[in-house]
Amino acid sequence: MEAEILAVGTEILLGDILNTNAQYLSKQLASLGINVHFQTVVGDNAERLTQAVNLAYSRADLVITSGGLGPTEDDLTKETCTRYFGEPLVEDEKAMAMLTDFFKALNRTMTDNNRKQAMVPRGATVMYNENGTAPGIIQEGKGKILIMLPGPPRELIPMFETYAKPFLASKQDSIFVSRVLRIAKVGESEVEHLLKDLIDKQTNPTIATYVKRYEVIVRLTAKAKTEAEANKLIDPVAEEIYERLGNNLYAEGETTVSEVVCKMLLERNLTVAVAESCTGGMLSSTFVDYPGISQVFLEGDVTYSNEAKMRRLGVKAETLAQHGAVSAQTAAQMAEGVAKAAGADIGISTTGVAGPDGGTEEKPVGTVYLGLYYQGEVKTKLVHLVGNRERIRIRTVEAAFDWLRRTIQKKEAEQTKE
Amino acid sequence: MEAEILAVGTEILLGDILNTNAQYLSKQLASLGINVHFQTVVGDNAERLTQAVNLAYSRADLVITSGGLGPTEDDLTKETCTRYFGEPLVEDEKAMAMLTDFFKALNRTMTDNNRKQAMVPRGATVMYNENGTAPGIIQEGKGKILIMLPGPPRELIPMFETYAKPFLASKQDSIFVSRVLRIAKVGESEVEHLLKDLIDKQTNPTIATYVKRYEVIVRLTAKAKTEAEANKLIDPVAEEIYERLGNNLYAEGETTVSEVVCKMLLERNLTVAVAESCTGGMLSSTFVDYPGISQVFLEGDVTYSNEAKMRRLGVKAETLAQHGAVSAQTAAQMAEGVAKAAGADIGISTTGVAGPDGGTEEKPVGTVYLGLYYQGEVKTKLVHLVGNRERIRIRTVEAAFDWLRRTIQKKEAEQTKE
Repeated sequence: MEAEILAVGTEILLGDILNTNAQYLSKQLASLGINVHFQTVVGDNAERLTQAVNLAYSRADLVITSGGLGPTEDDLTKETCTRYFGEPLVEDEKAMAMLTDFFKALNRTMTDNNRKQAMVPRGATVMYNENGTAPGIIQEGKGKILIMLPGPPRELIPMFETYAKPFLASKQDSIFVSRVLRIAKVGESEVEHLLKDLIDKQTNPTIATYVKRYEVIVRLTAKAKTEAEANKLIDPVAEEIYERLGNNLYAEGETTVSEVVCKMLLERNLTVAVAESCTGGMLSSTFVDYPGISQVFLEGDVTYSNEAKMRRLGVKAETLAQHGAVSAQTAAQMAEGVAKAAGADIGISTTGVAGPDGGTEEKPVGTVYLGLYYQGEVKTKLVHLVGNRERIRIRTVEAAFDWLRRTIQKKEAEQTKE
Repeated sequence: MEAEILAVGTEILLGDILNTNAQYLSKQLASLGINVHFQTVVGDNAERLTQAVNLAYSRADLVITSGGLGPTEDDLTKETCTRYFGEPLVEDEKAMAMLTDFFKALNRTMTDNNRKQAMVPRGATVMYNENGTAPGIIQEGKGKILIMLPGPPRELIPMFETYAKPFLASKQDSIFVSRVLRIAKVGESEVEHLLKDLIDKQTNPTIATYVKRYEVIVRLTAKAKTEAEANKLIDPVAEEIYERLGNNLYAEGETTVSEVVCKMLLERNLTVAVAESCTGGMLSSTFVDYPGISQVFLEGDVTYSNEAKMRRLGVKAETLAQHGAVSAQTAAQMAEGVAKAAGADIGISTTGVAGPDGGTEEKPVGTVYLGLYYQGEVKTKLVHLVGNRERIRIRTVEAAFDWLRRTIQKKEAEQTKE
């Protein structure tokens, strides 16, 4: 099956919006074994949209559109893209009910424009939108498939996963199964070096490495008739990679170090408290991203000022005077202070220079101390990070989580030995 | 002038790379008054590339390509795209010298593939590459302009700025100036309704509305000979929009509500402390995103447990027992508690049900109370938010900032009246 991805939106042509949907959809289609031959972007303009849609039908079996389904422009896009199949637009009862509920929940009046979003081609499959107003559409005919998705990624992604992906998978006779191995804190070239012989002789599964934010991803992709067969091809290669990367390899699949750590804490019922300076709440917030974390996450203190560090966490005035707020000594007292105040098993702290100002020769921008109080012991770690303020703060949070993960794993390995 | 942006690269069609070049080029062309009618992505495939290029020449005056100039695939792209003009490829002396130097500096041997990068169409303008190996090309003829740029953004951007932008500017006899007005907490259709007559009769400036995350953007774009003339066209329309939208319109240009609030606090030297439950540090972290905020941001407490709410903020046990942690009463005590503990002018608090669990019939997921202690007074606000856990938390942070902004502005308006 050959596909074209067609994004509709003048705001993309103006550069106001980055077309991340095209990347997401391309990745998804690749995993389904569907080739994408073109990505096109066209504005909210009837003539050019018609031209682009007709061209797409002429050169692809599958046309996936994103955007143009909102209340202000949906007539145009829906009519233009579905005209090819020759079915009239009719009101979908469930879509209308969902629209009505949506506006009721927001206590807003539903205008006629909004109402039109519930119109769908007769006989088409409706993809209901749990995260917005415009439903999506799957329409088949004349040997072609049209899949229309809304523009906002937070609507498009769940809709694709729920409806379009299983639909497309059912059309394919061999499938691609990918397994993702996630590696923390080792550079891409180092990972490639460690796996070079495996990468060189790869066939099925294929092995690809990517850098994603602050980690390296190894993706193993096998082609087979069934998922079980594909997994059988992947298993021995994955095992070999586990062997070589040790506990740098922290998880499989779609997850993050912070998620893995939150799961570990909940499973072990280890309580945690957080004291932050340079990360300013981002570390706490990342814990709280995890649903159910309230079982073990007791509190977070953003002690940006020295006064708050002393009052809230019991950091000593002498320590601040002698070593400064950005120091191993302060980090240690912050971690211990917050753990003891909250009565937590674990206290974790950050203090550093996130920039753009505040750097010195001795402690340049990117100098960050982490503190970890863990079952009665306190340790600290100095990291040097590069990038802008935001990147340094995000990287600090990642480093703190990864350090906590390694500490828990190491402690447990030691206890198992004893 | 009508333009098409054509990215060449199979890696984009596989979803391995996000096409940020298209956004960058679109923005640049918009500011030059050049309309982009299509963005296209095609793989490194001779037949489909030929098809895409011919189509682009048939419907655009200006074709800008990115990618496909590297040592492995440059023949294909360069020959295919320049064939239209009928000039042979010849070696460019300076480009060859730069290539030779590049490889010498890296102490690597230059292969024949690499040599071919210095081949350019006879008579074309060569855009030398200071940041990589492949030079770019500007070619004109038959009423068309072709601009070929390398794929990596760190090469493409400086090359566009240095060569292509001045070249294109010299072709334009009028420029476009845009002014962006940002509106908080009013739906897109409501904004369109309020501005309907202005939008209907728009000519110069044009008026466009967009939803961007949790706000609505109104973009006014005027076409004129000079920037001053364009601004003269925009001013009266902007004034009228200010009039109609009141303080829902919170800023102009590239900014956010949180940035506006941080600036207001710093200008007024108003100190702030934050007490968070459901947002879990995200509100503090958003303050800390703003460089220099340490002047006024005193502390943040993430009091996720009831115990922490009582111990850290002085929330009363009776309040929690009687009204629950998610209540106006608790929000009020949290805001006042943190402000008084930190000695801050302003205390702001969040407590709500972010989900996915924890909702009740009385307080469903998305029920959030905000508390605001401001110069001795405490008030609370109940908001109902929709979406997943992350969205509810982000939306809570936006709501808190916007409420603080409106409160400060209202107080000042009152004081001015007195």
